[in-house]
Amino acid sequence: MTAFSSLADLRHLCQTLPPPDLDAAAAVRVRQAQLTKPAGSLGRLESLVAWLAAWQRREMPRLDRVEVIIFAGNHGVTTCGVSPFPASVTAQMVANFEAGGAAINQLARVAGAKLRVCPLSLDQPTRNFVEAEAMDEAEFLDAVRIGYDSVDHGVDLLCPGEMGIGNTSSAAAVAGALFGGAESWAGRGTGLDDAGLARKQQLIAAALDQHASVRDPLDILRVFGGRELAAIFGAVLSARQKSVPVLLDGFVCTAAVAPWAQIAAAALDHVQAAHVSAEAAHRRLLETLRLEPLLDLGMRLGEASGAAVAIGVLRAALACHTGMATFAEAGVGH
Amino acid sequence: MTAFSSLADLRHLCQTLPPPDLDAAAAVRVRQAQLTKPAGSLGRLESLVAWLAAWQRREMPRLDRVEVIIFAGNHGVTTCGVSPFPASVTAQMVANFEAGGAAINQLARVAGAKLRVCPLSLDQPTRNFVEAEAMDEAEFLDAVRIGYDSVDHGVDLLCPGEMGIGNTSSAAAVAGALFGGAESWAGRGTGLDDAGLARKQQLIAAALDQHASVRDPLDILRVFGGRELAAIFGAVLSARQKSVPVLLDGFVCTAAVAPWAQIAAAALDHVQAAHVSAEAAHRRLLETLRLEPLLDLGMRLGEASGAAVAIGVLRAALACHTGMATFAEAGVGH
Repeated sequence: MTAFSSLADLRHLCQTLPPPDLDAAAAVRVRQAQLTKPAGSLGRLESLVAWLAAWQRREMPRLDRVEVIIFAGNHGVTTCGVSPFPASVTAQMVANFEAGGAAINQLARVAGAKLRVCPLSLDQPTRNFVEAEAMDEAEFLDAVRIGYDSVDHGVDLLCPGEMGIGNTSSAAAVAGALFGGAESWAGRGTGLDDAGLARKQQLIAAALDQHASVRDPLDILRVFGGRELAAIFGAVLSARQKSVPVLLDGFVCTAAVAPWAQIAAAALDHVQAAHVSAEAAHRRLLETLRLEPLLDLGMRLGEASGAAVAIGVLRAALACHTGMATFAEAGVGH
Repeated sequence: MTAFSSLADLRHLCQTLPPPDLDAAAAVRVRQAQLTKPAGSLGRLESLVAWLAAWQRREMPRLDRVEVIIFAGNHGVTTCGVSPFPASVTAQMVANFEAGGAAINQLARVAGAKLRVCPLSLDQPTRNFVEAEAMDEAEFLDAVRIGYDSVDHGVDLLCPGEMGIGNTSSAAAVAGALFGGAESWAGRGTGLDDAGLARKQQLIAAALDQHASVRDPLDILRVFGGRELAAIFGAVLSARQKSVPVLLDGFVCTAAVAPWAQIAAAALDHVQAAHVSAEAAHRRLLETLRLEPLLDLGMRLGEASGAAVAIGVLRAALACHTGMATFAEAGVGH
């Protein structure tokens, strides 16, 4: 049943990339040229519809079933004081998601998206990656599998999100291990002061030294990542296999899928970066991955909040495409 | 009944600026600090809610009544070939708006906004500003008054928009007359080729020479502006008087209100720039006016289309503010 039972299987799946449906995208372009507007004047709204069509594999894409899934995990590295919030807040926020009180509950409702919450062994934090490997192979594959299996066939758009006190440290370490530059990927996360930021940078540099021999992208995610990062990786991989386009949220989500881009150049073609966050390393990571964010609103909350706001842009784009009159229908000269 | 009956009256009204309600904005900030998220982590979504509160003059702002009003006008300058579309398209697009087939119809529906269309003497184009003053004082005041009277008390958000073949030439001439730089404000509009762009730049330079003695901001709008620009000016002026915040669309709308910023420094404080368009001069004009756009999606359609997409960002911001639990309510530590 499962798509992979070993790291080798998973690596193979990462290299098995379904291509886009170019005919569907071409059909979108043909219709766009007939709609009552100057050619190209809706800018990125037009290319977004072609992207949806290519990855949903249908000439007239739809956004009837949009899913936000929040993966939550706890991190051993929090014992080093990398966040102003205690690790107990992860479970408290999961309860808040389930009660409807968090930002993402409001944003998903406004965006017409279904919200699911997926807590990952919150009572078993990953090991502190400064001292040990965060996950062993079985733990890592379990988390990837949970993410993979969370994506259903027939979903029109997936917005994976995360909650996990300490996880910007994990994301920074993953980025540093993949691309070099060590502590420059560390930022203020949920609100570190200058001293806290300096400590976080030192910890990440020490962790990268400790695990300097780890070079394989999947091993990097296993050694530095949290369970929620592994699950997001699995969910985005699964979406590619199931013809589900993905809106990617902030720095942690982007770091979670960055290892895949190291394995296969076209890995993230079914992904749009929803926004660039206020966590400074996010802009740099998006540039490294050649992802152009849709929004730049200074958000840095996680929870798929940036992705949820960007759903509205996609709905606007799709509404124009499906609802506008053609020049012929409207009797407009061109 | 009318708020002004002469240019002198109008100039006085432009200098009579109701200030923001700082208490309402402060109440928003107090509540934001209690919501279940790290301080400031919703970025610009937070400042937008404070802005709405300040200008709606209520501690808990709302977006129950959002209005898009499209002002349409025709331009004598179209006889010089400044657009690839004939002037007859203005009226055809007004019919398309009324039939529901244009981009803005779809975008307004998605955004939950009411759409109104206000054609302004389409059978009487303004005079060609290359040769003559586009409007005399009575014509100008009539158009400003139509815009002014179109805004009702009790509207929660106004998105003025425009349709008028040739009106990016008008906007470029207004910007050039206000800020200098002549032809550098001219762009491709709905899709000029290189030769067309060069001709447009020459025409605008010639027009600025012809009317070099016109220095007063309101006279600049009268001499170079179209009726729809004057009406947008009136609508945004009216919104300030009636506690209605404004989302500003693209280059033409921004040029229409730029004269007011020359008269009073705080004139556009109740305005947010919804987006920066693909018309290159728009970015420069926003920078000149110190307006920071919410979106950058390469749009260049007009019709309030960029403003309508940005309504979704405001709705997302407001939903977080009104719907989120506080730390105390959710039992989340901080």
